[in-house]
Amino acid sequence: MKVYRYPDRQDIARLTERPLHDATDLNATVAAVLKDVRERGDEAVTEYEERFDHARLKSLAVTEKEMDEAEAMVGEELRQAIAIAHANISKFHAAQLSEGVHVSVTEGVECWQKPVPIEKVGLYIPGGTAPLFSTVLMLAVPARIAGCSQIVLCTPPSPEGKVNPCILYAARVAGVDRIFKIGGVQAIGAMAYGTATVPKVYKIFGPGNQYVMCAKQHVSLHDVAIDMPAGPSEVEVLADETSNPSFVAADLLSQAEHGVDSQVMLVTTSESLAESVQVEIERQLASLPRKDIAARALENSKIILVKDEDGMMEITNAYAPEHLIIESAGYMRLAGRVVNAGSVFLGSLTPESAGDYASGTNHTLPTNGYAMAYSGVNIDSYMRKITFQHITPSGIRSIGKAVETMAEAEGLRAHRNAMTLRVQSLDEQ
Amino acid sequence: MKVYRYPDRQDIARLTERPLHDATDLNATVAAVLKDVRERGDEAVTEYEERFDHARLKSLAVTEKEMDEAEAMVGEELRQAIAIAHANISKFHAAQLSEGVHVSVTEGVECWQKPVPIEKVGLYIPGGTAPLFSTVLMLAVPARIAGCSQIVLCTPPSPEGKVNPCILYAARVAGVDRIFKIGGVQAIGAMAYGTATVPKVYKIFGPGNQYVMCAKQHVSLHDVAIDMPAGPSEVEVLADETSNPSFVAADLLSQAEHGVDSQVMLVTTSESLAESVQVEIERQLASLPRKDIAARALENSKIILVKDEDGMMEITNAYAPEHLIIESAGYMRLAGRVVNAGSVFLGSLTPESAGDYASGTNHTLPTNGYAMAYSGVNIDSYMRKITFQHITPSGIRSIGKAVETMAEAEGLRAHRNAMTLRVQSLDEQ
Repeated sequence: MKVYRYPDRQDIARLTERPLHDATDLNATVAAVLKDVRERGDEAVTEYEERFDHARLKSLAVTEKEMDEAEAMVGEELRQAIAIAHANISKFHAAQLSEGVHVSVTEGVECWQKPVPIEKVGLYIPGGTAPLFSTVLMLAVPARIAGCSQIVLCTPPSPEGKVNPCILYAARVAGVDRIFKIGGVQAIGAMAYGTATVPKVYKIFGPGNQYVMCAKQHVSLHDVAIDMPAGPSEVEVLADETSNPSFVAADLLSQAEHGVDSQVMLVTTSESLAESVQVEIERQLASLPRKDIAARALENSKIILVKDEDGMMEITNAYAPEHLIIESAGYMRLAGRVVNAGSVFLGSLTPESAGDYASGTNHTLPTNGYAMAYSGVNIDSYMRKITFQHITPSGIRSIGKAVETMAEAEGLRAHRNAMTLRVQSLDEQ
Repeated sequence: MKVYRYPDRQDIARLTERPLHDATDLNATVAAVLKDVRERGDEAVTEYEERFDHARLKSLAVTEKEMDEAEAMVGEELRQAIAIAHANISKFHAAQLSEGVHVSVTEGVECWQKPVPIEKVGLYIPGGTAPLFSTVLMLAVPARIAGCSQIVLCTPPSPEGKVNPCILYAARVAGVDRIFKIGGVQAIGAMAYGTATVPKVYKIFGPGNQYVMCAKQHVSLHDVAIDMPAGPSEVEVLADETSNPSFVAADLLSQAEHGVDSQVMLVTTSESLAESVQVEIERQLASLPRKDIAARALENSKIILVKDEDGMMEITNAYAPEHLIIESAGYMRLAGRVVNAGSVFLGSLTPESAGDYASGTNHTLPTNGYAMAYSGVNIDSYMRKITFQHITPSGIRSIGKAVETMAEAEGLRAHRNAMTLRVQSLDEQ
């Protein structure tokens, strides 16, 4: 890790910059696959599955029999773990359900919101080296709680045409309705446009590689909503001389093992902690199965020494990290000063991995500084709030004149007329 | 208006389709202007103002003196109307502020949300034939209530370098911090990237023409969030034999006058109402200043006859209208069946124009069927919900094992280690 000592304000801007991931060169490829899926549906999807996932599929849909087989393959210990995670994620997200507000705005004018679930949602779960069944829970549990009537999941099959049993089991536990063996751009296209087999959805959630992200953004321009844009995963740790260097090192490594482009940052007021964390990282790294990935991610990682808590918070709020772990003594005080972050982990006993799996918060979070403007996935991500209004004769008397005046000033006479006719109808009575 | 009699299910799919507005051919132009603004900042913006708005500007920022002059030009009646609208919009949006939930998820595991305003937001207000000062209120009032620390507004100047006084006055009333005389793509670029004069913002709100919409989508891919994608404005009216044909006609016309591409639809169970509405439209249309626009919009508009309330709701929820006015007798019963719509107006005395200006609900709403997945602008549009979690020793005992098991099953050993070290630290005590 590179160490930066007491940066000034200009340095902070540079240190909190993300590397630029320009996906422009993917655009043409992604657009071509999407167009093909839109036009040829299942036939195109099946061809791309053979080409990209090397799987010759007779059927895209996962069967009930495959679900049963998967369930039988999941051991008791993991079932219990998934049950705990499911319960906690459910509890935290169910508490987020709201009634919407009902307001008597003025005499005779009632306005209210009605939260309504998005009817059809699509979840994308990547394949690759780690079977992310935890992400199945994070995306499907709130969808079920929100009341979405159709929850579709796409995930790439192995060359043998199989899906990891943990993913299927988690999908069953979380209440996914239909699962398809489709990966990559063709999965996003199938859910965005619909095919004979795959239902069209209204919003697509979930992580993926550059191609998947590019495809999600492409379809979001016209056809469906998406959860949020995304970049490589990130953690920032705040620590001081009271922090446990072994814990801090483990937390940094748990981010570093995600991928070579993972962003890892330690901001500390303590020179001695900075040193001992580096020693601990070397020690812990040696025994990791994914040590090559983690070591490469660490090459671009940063330890930043700052003078005080103000320095910590200036960097944090400029960086807007996806995950922020505050392991210094004043963690509660610092928590109150967080303005830009995705999810925050407080104290020495709250590692990011707790939230990644089972504390109850969602692990689908804004990366790349998007925390400046986006929330992580939460129950609202699956709802719309429709507004309603009802006006009585006394309400017309309260606001009728204002509406007529403003409409006229905007040059919209028909808007005014619609109100004038109501006003006159009351005068005539 | 074209009349469609008792369509079957297949016809409904066709009748609720929007015309395709392919903006692909704008992409190159928009991308070039954005790139130029990003690279050359104020210099490029000033050049584009001359080229596109025919305004030679010495300064992009509206001065306090100009604000004072504008205020003096707004008549007392309009000030009072704006005050009423401001009060009602404030009341409805302030009621939407939430504390976020705090949940004791399980023994020793506390999770909570902290709603935090987006620090910097940018509002775009189009120029053109109607000075949309009502949109200034709709976008700036909730931003102020949410607590955004910087609210920037861009709007195109006249060739004389002036901004409509009603827009400036509404901006002052609503609490906009800084106003710039910039329109079109260059305005979106200036707010997305920042220039020497215009601060970079984190989210951009507001309507605009095809170029503005294309620019918003372009910058939303990497640089800032946007409120929502948008298409032409729309209204659907539900009416029966008890509805007032003159009111219904006025409501349809108030949508039609927006633009030639406005979407206007009447769905009714009553043949006689359908006829009398058409007579009323002809009568009212004749006296409208914008009758040419409205007449052209009506050419593509639809009257759909249905058998019953089921027929009404099937079309409504398939169409997902931006505005839905329910003027039939059972409006409250029907309101309960609305699943897809932006904002709903109930009863004979609640015209869309009430919500456009002063009922308190927001008039920035999802068009083009986006109501399937998006809410209209509301207080949440200006906030993020950051999640926090804190775990105690008993919490580690509650979920530690589950986290270790799931991390191991996903092949993420460093994730497991981060928890194992905490578990061991407690065992050692």
